[in-house]
Amino acid sequence: VTPDDDFQRIAIVGLGLIGGSIAFAARRTFPSAVIIGVDVDDVIVPARQLGAVTHGSTELEIVKGADLVILAAPVRENVRLLARLATLLEAPTVITDTGSTKRAIVEQQPRLADGVAFVGGHPLAGAARGGIEASRVDLFERRAWVLTPTAATPPAAVDCVSSFVRALGAQPLVLDASAHDRVLAYTSHLPQLTASALMHVVGQSVGDAGLRLAGGGLADTTRVAASPSRIWTDICATNADEILPALDGLIDVLQRIRRDLVEDRSIEPLFESAQRWRGRIK
Amino acid sequence: VTPDDDFQRIAIVGLGLIGGSIAFAARRTFPSAVIIGVDVDDVIVPARQLGAVTHGSTELEIVKGADLVILAAPVRENVRLLARLATLLEAPTVITDTGSTKRAIVEQQPRLADGVAFVGGHPLAGAARGGIEASRVDLFERRAWVLTPTAATPPAAVDCVSSFVRALGAQPLVLDASAHDRVLAYTSHLPQLTASALMHVVGQSVGDAGLRLAGGGLADTTRVAASPSRIWTDICATNADEILPALDGLIDVLQRIRRDLVEDRSIEPLFESAQRWRGRIK
Repeated sequence: VTPDDDFQRIAIVGLGLIGGSIAFAARRTFPSAVIIGVDVDDVIVPARQLGAVTHGSTELEIVKGADLVILAAPVRENVRLLARLATLLEAPTVITDTGSTKRAIVEQQPRLADGVAFVGGHPLAGAARGGIEASRVDLFERRAWVLTPTAATPPAAVDCVSSFVRALGAQPLVLDASAHDRVLAYTSHLPQLTASALMHVVGQSVGDAGLRLAGGGLADTTRVAASPSRIWTDICATNADEILPALDGLIDVLQRIRRDLVEDRSIEPLFESAQRWRGRIK
Repeated sequence: VTPDDDFQRIAIVGLGLIGGSIAFAARRTFPSAVIIGVDVDDVIVPARQLGAVTHGSTELEIVKGADLVILAAPVRENVRLLARLATLLEAPTVITDTGSTKRAIVEQQPRLADGVAFVGGHPLAGAARGGIEASRVDLFERRAWVLTPTAATPPAAVDCVSSFVRALGAQPLVLDASAHDRVLAYTSHLPQLTASALMHVVGQSVGDAGLRLAGGGLADTTRVAASPSRIWTDICATNADEILPALDGLIDVLQRIRRDLVEDRSIEPLFESAQRWRGRIK
């Protein structure tokens, strides 16, 4: 764990599930640090009441002077925030973000002042529901936290963010932004789109009366369909090229199942393949 | 709760998750009743060791003389078992089953001896993993248990099965077999096929290395992909005509998402519809 005095001022922009959980975890891990939150009033007020932050503001300017600034808004909002920070921040500050797609912000990063550095980040942690109220101090414990530096990123900035996420109990994992986006299209974005599409079709088709005949299978399979739509709209918009082949792969398999059902062929091989793969994740 | 002496001999054919859980619940609810299990040796031995049944056999003949016989094998096996029971059982015996599709067994039911009656049944309870080891005495508590009598089913037989499932803590719900199969195609069979297809595609595409970047979303969405494939092969084979339109509905929505991504349109409306429907199930 990093000694307290390494991080004296930590600023978090966006206090949803991820930003809020980072705030709670940072307050516990760095009890003497100033933890600054930036969000709209409707979020800042409960964040202060809950003790997530020591200081809150609706104005981005408050982050000036922080050692570490964490952008935890939706992906495209983080891109805009980083552009504003480029004109606002002076050395020494490290900026990171928590967006679920990484090429958008990494490839559009602006020129920063000397001593100011940006390292893309993505904690692989979440919950079906968003918002400061859903935040958990232990959300990142033992979870992977991907960092996506480029060849131009100062190694000291990567070390800084690594030590911060390790202090929060997470495991930093350095990965190329493109590789991240390609894998996450399958392991995160496709499951979300599938769960939302499934829930929409089932709800529209059977209505409230039919949903009373739902068991645990539908509940599990569609749990993430409760996620905030704004976050996912940004993820899809910034990773469409990688999501498309994943979506095509799924549509192909569903059409193969369709043919097997029509032609009265067993779909046992598909079930068995899925069962094998499922056994490899927890 | 039904008095003990209503059920003195209960036979359960097939001791997987559902049959095993019925056995445990019946032993607790009717402590003086004889609970007979029929399955292969590899299942009967642990079922006796775990105390799920008082008597076990690999031979169907052992069910003769039972007040209630519950068929808890895969759907098409239940159909075959019911045909054999027609030549085996004498009055008075009530037979029910627990299969996830209902038209197959209800429409193919053989002529039974006077005083022997069959009532189709389906407890809406389950778990991601099958087998006697996964059985739970409280699996049916507060869950709906669909019964699908026909116009020819003696009301006394329906009352008998109703009182049994109520004694196990479940809520009997009388429904037409066709209506059951139509709704369950959406609320159960489509989610299972979707979860299995998704897990297959993700596993094949990213492999073990990529699965290490999976978060809770993939884990939830694919949990039921661990279900026993043999059970699901039978469900699909006996409900293909109802599953096909459900599958088509999902493929249509996925193709609409695909077009929206290609043409850079927001998919927020879909996410919002899914979020609303998801809020209506637990």
